[in-house]
Amino acid sequence: MSGSSTELIDLRAVHEALRATAPLVHCLTNTVVQALTANALLAVGAAPAMVDAPQEAGDFAAVASAVLVNVGTVHERTAEAMRIAARSAGTAGTPWVLDPVAVGALAYRTTLADELLALRPTVVRGNASEVMALAGAGAGGRGVDSTAGTDDAATAAAELARRTGGVVAVSGEVDLLTDGTRTVRVGGGSVLLTRTTGAGCALGALVAAYVAATDDPLTGAVAAHAHVALAAERAAATAAGPGTFAAAWLDALDAVDADALAKADVRVAR
Amino acid sequence: MSGSSTELIDLRAVHEALRATAPLVHCLTNTVVQALTANALLAVGAAPAMVDAPQEAGDFAAVASAVLVNVGTVHERTAEAMRIAARSAGTAGTPWVLDPVAVGALAYRTTLADELLALRPTVVRGNASEVMALAGAGAGGRGVDSTAGTDDAATAAAELARRTGGVVAVSGEVDLLTDGTRTVRVGGGSVLLTRTTGAGCALGALVAAYVAATDDPLTGAVAAHAHVALAAERAAATAAGPGTFAAAWLDALDAVDADALAKADVRVAR
Amino acid sequence: MSGSSTELIDLRAVHEALRATAPLVHCLTNTVVQALTANALLAVGAAPAMVDAPQEAGDFAAVASAVLVNVGTVHERTAEAMRIAARSAGTAGTPWVLDPVAVGALAYRTTLADELLALRPTVVRGNASEVMALAGAGAGGRGVDSTAGTDDAATAAAELARRTGGVVAVSGEVDLLTDGTRTVRVGGGSVLLTRTTGAGCALGALVAAYVAATDDPLTGAVAAHAHVALAAERAAATAAGPGTFAAAWLDALDAVDADALAKADVRVAR
Repeated sequence: MSGSSTELIDLRAVHEALRATAPLVHCLTNTVVQALTANALLAVGAAPAMVDAPQEAGDFAAVASAVLVNVGTVHERTAEAMRIAARSAGTAGTPWVLDPVAVGALAYRTTLADELLALRPTVVRGNASEVMALAGAGAGGRGVDSTAGTDDAATAAAELARRTGGVVAVSGEVDLLTDGTRTVRVGGGSVLLTRTTGAGCALGALVAAYVAATDDPLTGAVAAHAHVALAAERAAATAAGPGTFAAAWLDALDAVDADALAKADVRVAR
Repeated sequence: MSGSSTELIDLRAVHEALRATAPLVHCLTNTVVQALTANALLAVGAAPAMVDAPQEAGDFAAVASAVLVNVGTVHERTAEAMRIAARSAGTAGTPWVLDPVAVGALAYRTTLADELLALRPTVVRGNASEVMALAGAGAGGRGVDSTAGTDDAATAAAELARRTGGVVAVSGEVDLLTDGTRTVRVGGGSVLLTRTTGAGCALGALVAAYVAATDDPLTGAVAAHAHVALAAERAAATAAGPGTFAAAWLDALDAVDADALAKADVRVAR
Repeated sequence: MSGSSTELIDLRAVHEALRATAPLVHCLTNTVVQALTANALLAVGAAPAMVDAPQEAGDFAAVASAVLVNVGTVHERTAEAMRIAARSAGTAGTPWVLDPVAVGALAYRTTLADELLALRPTVVRGNASEVMALAGAGAGGRGVDSTAGTDDAATAAAELARRTGGVVAVSGEVDLLTDGTRTVRVGGGSVLLTRTTGAGCALGALVAAYVAATDDPLTGAVAAHAHVALAAERAAATAAGPGTFAAAWLDALDAVDADALAKADVRVAR
């Protein structure tokens, strides 16, 4: 069975809730993408804060609206901060997102991601290779690039979602999101997103912001993906190349409103 | 008593001195904002250098024209580098700026900021919540956002300035700067500054650059605030949103000249 | 003897090889420039990955197409990762580039750069002051700025190239590249490159990408310099200032094709 987005996923309501509450998103993320991530959060109406000292990560995760853990440039200190933040979020009931960048391709971060997965992230967001590696169903991609499509990862994603009790989002040409029961596909977007460093990582942060604005993590994750895709389409229409695209995408993240979001290319199946 | 900017604060002269001397600003700042900070320094005519290894911070602070210490993403190693740089700057007579990002909200950095404050920064630059927390007059804001206005922080700022013997600058809708005797208000600017990650942090770096170009730290700090506000107004007039604003703001930082700066909205009271 | 670029250096072929192979460039670089570096690599058609944990740097350098080691914000952990990555690249036969940012000006990184130099980088890329300091022929510049011109460094560069058996590239108004026998000068570019934080560091990454696409490191290094210079000229023609220049430069890095590159201002002497 499949239905329209308005039937099962109310994107309008979660967008309005995000704008009304301005969730504070605690980001433990890689140093390459911190600026774009923070600017993307500001553009959609959320408040970013990057805190990744082990001495502070636990306290801050407990008071934040949501937490993002992205292992892109992880090392010993930040790994420790991530463990502390994830545990603190769990104890406080704060929703948190795990972005397993390049997991499967590198042993150190794969072990860490397994540890973090056991702490049951509210949402896992990655590309097909990363999700398959995390589910134990594949050997990982090439660096940060996926070598598989989202549909290849559908079974692994659903299995992973049932294991964590959360949502798993697989980014690709068409995004695939599942809570283990429902599956949602989000279309649209632009290939220029893949030529902008950190667009996927920023999406992980927007998932955290949206999940903080709803009781249904699947709805929140879908809203973030739809918002990013719509903004990318608008930006691609005006950008002269990948450089001007990034700024135009931030402008469009700001401009996409509840009306636009409600009309996004979102297909629900169960 | 209040007077015009030309009477008490000569912005034209300090701008000309900055352009003539191209101060080398040693930045120990958070990883989110390093690129924007460096580009803002280049845009106004200063030279940035980010050096935050404990092995190098002391040597570099001693030869730099000014030092910026911003605790935004501080952790054990960078905290040590900050202590070394601040001590070295003090010994060498190098002016230095403390930006107490999120101090008051998190214990670890609050303790560090107190230590750094005891080393007597030439200028403290923060939002109202941060300045009040540093002065012991408030509990801090929500992450990096202030929950108080600049006028709420006026007494705390003046008290703090008298304690350090330096200048305290409180950023807000109208900026408030004081050396404990004189108080200066800088108007203008744009709300888009608050939607650009690192604009406030970059302002801290510009304060360092300007303070290196004058014997009067209050004049230098005021010039930096006025320069940022004027550039923001120009950028807001051309930007399509928060993404294109950032690049337009850098263009405008470059374009604002001594004539423009001399006409800034600066009000002095004593 | 001097000849045209088409005679001795086939820029068209190396550009086509780069676009066809999309080299995976493992960057151990400073935190200020990571985003611009990654976006520049994506713009020319390469794939960036920033991995600088000692636990991962060796494994990744062995599978990457090329490695960049840039000591801009180096500290104890990243220095260790750089040593591991450089050794791993050497063992695996992976080409790697050393960018000795501010070497000569600071003792800690100068010692590290000497260690790395002994591991025989395929290409050294720096400004004149840095190259002269690395060759033992000068005391280093002011922070990241060179206090010497590229011709001042010609002898030091050639000596250094013969010592490492690799290529040495000196960036400046006219770039000078040498393998100890041949010397190539690349003209063009724009002064706005010097007002964009990380443009030189991104050039180092593009050298790594191009060197991965050819058997002749000098050809690869020349192609990267010519590509950057041509893109800078195009961007300068449309930019309103240093802020909009950065995005326009990324657009132009994407747009410069083999035809354009083959006509670059490249002069070979032997």
